[in-house]
Amino acid sequence: MTQSDKQVSGEDSLIARYFKPLANDPGAFNLDDDAGALKAAGEEIVVTTDAIVEGVHFLAGDPPDTLARKALRVNLSDIAAKGAVPAGFVLTVALRAVEEAWLKPFAAALGEDAAHYGCPLLGGDTVSTPGPLMISITAFGRVPDGRMVHRSGAKAGDRVFVTGTIGDAALGLDVLRGGPVAAALAEDAAARDWLASRYRIPQPRNALALAVREHTSAAMDVSDGLAGDLAKLCAASGVSAEIELPRIPHSRAAASLLAQGVVGVEALIAGGDDYEILCAVPEDRADAFALAAQGAGVAVAAIGRIVSGRVGPRFLDGQGREQTLERLSYSHF
Amino acid sequence: MTQSDKQVSGEDSLIARYFKPLANDPGAFNLDDDAGALKAAGEEIVVTTDAIVEGVHFLAGDPPDTLARKALRVNLSDIAAKGAVPAGFVLTVALRAVEEAWLKPFAAALGEDAAHYGCPLLGGDTVSTPGPLMISITAFGRVPDGRMVHRSGAKAGDRVFVTGTIGDAALGLDVLRGGPVAAALAEDAAARDWLASRYRIPQPRNALALAVREHTSAAMDVSDGLAGDLAKLCAASGVSAEIELPRIPHSRAAASLLAQGVVGVEALIAGGDDYEILCAVPEDRADAFALAAQGAGVAVAAIGRIVSGRVGPRFLDGQGREQTLERLSYSHF
Repeated sequence: MTQSDKQVSGEDSLIARYFKPLANDPGAFNLDDDAGALKAAGEEIVVTTDAIVEGVHFLAGDPPDTLARKALRVNLSDIAAKGAVPAGFVLTVALRAVEEAWLKPFAAALGEDAAHYGCPLLGGDTVSTPGPLMISITAFGRVPDGRMVHRSGAKAGDRVFVTGTIGDAALGLDVLRGGPVAAALAEDAAARDWLASRYRIPQPRNALALAVREHTSAAMDVSDGLAGDLAKLCAASGVSAEIELPRIPHSRAAASLLAQGVVGVEALIAGGDDYEILCAVPEDRADAFALAAQGAGVAVAAIGRIVSGRVGPRFLDGQGREQTLERLSYSHF
Repeated sequence: MTQSDKQVSGEDSLIARYFKPLANDPGAFNLDDDAGALKAAGEEIVVTTDAIVEGVHFLAGDPPDTLARKALRVNLSDIAAKGAVPAGFVLTVALRAVEEAWLKPFAAALGEDAAHYGCPLLGGDTVSTPGPLMISITAFGRVPDGRMVHRSGAKAGDRVFVTGTIGDAALGLDVLRGGPVAAALAEDAAARDWLASRYRIPQPRNALALAVREHTSAAMDVSDGLAGDLAKLCAASGVSAEIELPRIPHSRAAASLLAQGVVGVEALIAGGDDYEILCAVPEDRADAFALAAQGAGVAVAAIGRIVSGRVGPRFLDGQGREQTLERLSYSHF
């Protein structure tokens, strides 16, 4: 910026100092313009937006570097689930005050993730707020025209797959809040830290995007709880599903807490913040999908089948008996 | 949605009831998916994001319909200033509670503006917050590839134009806060209401977008004060400017308050929220630009010239004497 000191407002110099180094894509115009630009030759732009609010989606005092990563990654997870390749993002940060000790690690971590996932900053808005810190990101992905994967294509007979492990983030949140999980793991700092990191730093499955696009009939990211999100996928597809609870993948920590009765299965499959991919795969593509996932280095598990009908998905125990869940997912209101 | 009542969370039914009717673009997928999609055949997608926060950009108790319009229009203004045609938007709303009395008029007004400006809702995120209401919108526009208008193209000799009238919104904010302007207009309810509406409901100049694209060398929207925003345009272009203060267009209400000494010129040209377009037009395009603006029904005024140099823009009174401004624009921090 060539403006004199008098002309550089606090907001401008803030943006310049911390966020311009991230704006290395030509479409960001060095954050010197009113807007960014996305080239899209013969492609469709997939658009998703997710916000995180202090005290709701993260805890006051959560480290700024993990907040930056979470804010971007929850959006990258949507891009991956749609079979798209990240193309860029815009950032809105509502801050109570400009604190270098917060902004510096926030911007540094955001820049690292942007580079790692190939998703450059294209623009943003920095505003002041008297209230909780809020970070809102709108992210873009590219898919060949018409190839975005929807929630609505699942068919009876399709296998249901999910990536990674389910329920860790909900347990991590309990750890950070000092709840029953924290108490049960009082002697196991490593397990507590690992679960907390699963809550704070999602691992979006962008490596799986091409396999999702090539092989699935429907997909979504699991953000509000596996059970509720599956119900949404089924509703969008006009189908139902039968899920075998013992096949749902859990981490060693989660499986142990479940076995000890510290938590029930509901806490795991109706908890939020997993940011895994849930998808339906036609039977004749299941092997190819599993192989592609292996090639991409992403663990996937077949947990059940899509069935016809418009009732909610059914969850069966090891003996094939239906388990009734009191709640399926996290809701804001 | 075909989900049973148990499966429809408060958030889902909220989205369904109020926002689905707005999602009439095929790329919105009826808000039933993780993402929206923008087709872009041979075009570039212009991306802009602007957030408004209760107590900062609007007042607690401001009517929900005007908030909806303002949140969308501040973004439409950026799209217009880049010479782009609106293509859609995504919405993030952070709410303390679900109140039908607030949401219904909010969504209705947003839908009206979306239809009026041809800018459909493509997706969104509704989150709860313990703090101030916040509305964050990311809007998209289309331009032919490489034709986005930048802040950086102004050249010495170009004429400086601005649309509409400058300073009304800053006066309107003073009216709503019960400041000196409200006192001076104690007997003139019509003028108070008009100024308040200029603050609450910007009039983005999207009708001028094609003329901006065809004839200007640089353009931006005036959101943080004409003086400061001109300084930004000059800095981005590596030039300076000389502005004749008497040529800056003011409304009858603003001119009268200025003449009476209730406010100084600084309050008008360093106040925010105008959402007019500021642009530089090469001398040989000035007549064509003015004609195109007339055809589009948008008032424009030539207020000065771009000059060489890297100092901040100079503001001259009727006798050609430079006026020093203490501040140029609104800053959040």
